[in-house]
Amino acid sequence: MTKKELQDCHQRIKKYIHRTPVLTSTLLNNISGAQIFFKCENFQRMGAFKMRGAASAISKLSDIQKSHGVVTHSSGNFAQALSLAAKSLDVKAYIVMPSTAPQVKKDAVKGYGGEIIECPPTLQDREQTAFKIQTEKKATFLHPSNDLDVILGQGTAAIELLEEHPYLEYIFTPVGGGGLVAGTALAAHFYGTDCTVIGGEPFEVDDAYRSLKSGKIETNSTTNTIADGLKTQLGDINFPIIKNYVDEIIRVEEDEIISAMQLIWERMKIIIEPSCAVPFAALLKEKQRFENTKIGIILSGGNVDLKNLPF
Amino acid sequence: MTKKELQDCHQRIKKYIHRTPVLTSTLLNNISGAQIFFKCENFQRMGAFKMRGAASAISKLSDIQKSHGVVTHSSGNFAQALSLAAKSLDVKAYIVMPSTAPQVKKDAVKGYGGEIIECPPTLQDREQTAFKIQTEKKATFLHPSNDLDVILGQGTAAIELLEEHPYLEYIFTPVGGGGLVAGTALAAHFYGTDCTVIGGEPFEVDDAYRSLKSGKIETNSTTNTIADGLKTQLGDINFPIIKNYVDEIIRVEEDEIISAMQLIWERMKIIIEPSCAVPFAALLKEKQRFENTKIGIILSGGNVDLKNLPF
Repeated sequence: MTKKELQDCHQRIKKYIHRTPVLTSTLLNNISGAQIFFKCENFQRMGAFKMRGAASAISKLSDIQKSHGVVTHSSGNFAQALSLAAKSLDVKAYIVMPSTAPQVKKDAVKGYGGEIIECPPTLQDREQTAFKIQTEKKATFLHPSNDLDVILGQGTAAIELLEEHPYLEYIFTPVGGGGLVAGTALAAHFYGTDCTVIGGEPFEVDDAYRSLKSGKIETNSTTNTIADGLKTQLGDINFPIIKNYVDEIIRVEEDEIISAMQLIWERMKIIIEPSCAVPFAALLKEKQRFENTKIGIILSGGNVDLKNLPF
Repeated sequence: MTKKELQDCHQRIKKYIHRTPVLTSTLLNNISGAQIFFKCENFQRMGAFKMRGAASAISKLSDIQKSHGVVTHSSGNFAQALSLAAKSLDVKAYIVMPSTAPQVKKDAVKGYGGEIIECPPTLQDREQTAFKIQTEKKATFLHPSNDLDVILGQGTAAIELLEEHPYLEYIFTPVGGGGLVAGTALAAHFYGTDCTVIGGEPFEVDDAYRSLKSGKIETNSTTNTIADGLKTQLGDINFPIIKNYVDEIIRVEEDEIISAMQLIWERMKIIIEPSCAVPFAALLKEKQRFENTKIGIILSGGNVDLKNLPF
């Protein structure tokens, strides 16, 4: 990976994404003791940073590949991101979703123009169904996090943050499938001035924390976390980047995630999803170490079910 | 009132307030058919535009007046605004609150440094208690909406909006005590280019709508609305301005307020309080009339009880 690849990716996707604002809060600075710059990807198109990776991957395809469409299996933000990015690029998107996925998620994908193919709710069924579409439609499979163009795309949020605040000493992101933290680490490496990337991860799904310790990709036997975007595991493409460029992962408890989320809602008056609160929770947990430093936090997304809030 | 008075007010309060961002949403433009510019006073200090009026009124006092402090009776946003503005200007603030006010509101006032004086929950008791403090402490009484300096202060949000978007054809605001709509109307008159100001008001507390029709200040016999910031009535200082400069008040039903609030939460990922959703609800109700026009909406505040949401 080179700085040029990141730059090219950012140029390529600029017209499909929002340049999201960077917000600050004196109150949250006082509470944390650090100077925090929140990169608001909750204001991104479709409500999450995943739009960047999806636009990056699709825009990299050849015209022939584009004409056959793209396919993924996801019931989360990547399903919506791929649908909207595909629509913006005039490409067909097939989204494999478990039949048990909530209606609101299916509606969102349909609203963005994705075609939903339902399957039984097991990983094996999802993969087989996606493979069938690859074969039958010649559609290109795009993985939500373990794909280099997706990783580069996710890194563009940190590029914009560092363009506006070049002297950040740390950038915190959540860690789920690993795409965001890997892309951010590349951006910090090529665009930062001695900028350290730290991941936040729930104790309940601390596979990435354990992977960094053991040096190989670990999995979660259970996934009992409110941070539903972080239940996935690392992959063979993003893990080497994370091993090389991510300094540390800080783990947080469920109640710490909920309080961090509530603090941001109440003090900043912005809506973030539980997964998005994890890096801020991680900073608060270890705030003594980060006193008086300049910290960027990627607020990853704002898609929540208002009828099912944790407070 | 002159443009210079507005200008001077804006200059005087700039260091005590945030210049709040103006946000747009393609999705909400598509839903409404208009091009909307949301002035985000929910991001203002203490979470509402009331900070502007409070800072304006206090900063206008003489040094002797400042040394004796200020007093108001309020359990809403103005109590917090006066407390924080007074603290910022190194002035003592006495806040008369009904003993029945929720603990969370009392805590917010205390958090901003206001001194709470409790009284029985009737308007007469509130007024008597405030009068006692005026007499005993020589504190200056400041009214939340029926005070020229407060009105000018509230108008500064529209000044900033029009500085950034000079060709707005309409500005919508909620109508409660009348300070915001009156100040906005003055700003639109002096800073706009043929800019019409429209108020949004719940049917349940449509005193301002009826006042504009009858030509005299009307009251509400009941106040059964979710828009708890709009239960107050107009005053003899703001009503003449409203009669002169506000073109129209559009009334909305309670369910229309709740859907408008939910739309802004879900689509814009920002937190607004129910009163704040009223002007957007008014626009949606009459959207055919405003198709393809440029509209500013003052998002008045974001102080909500997350444990008591209407959806």
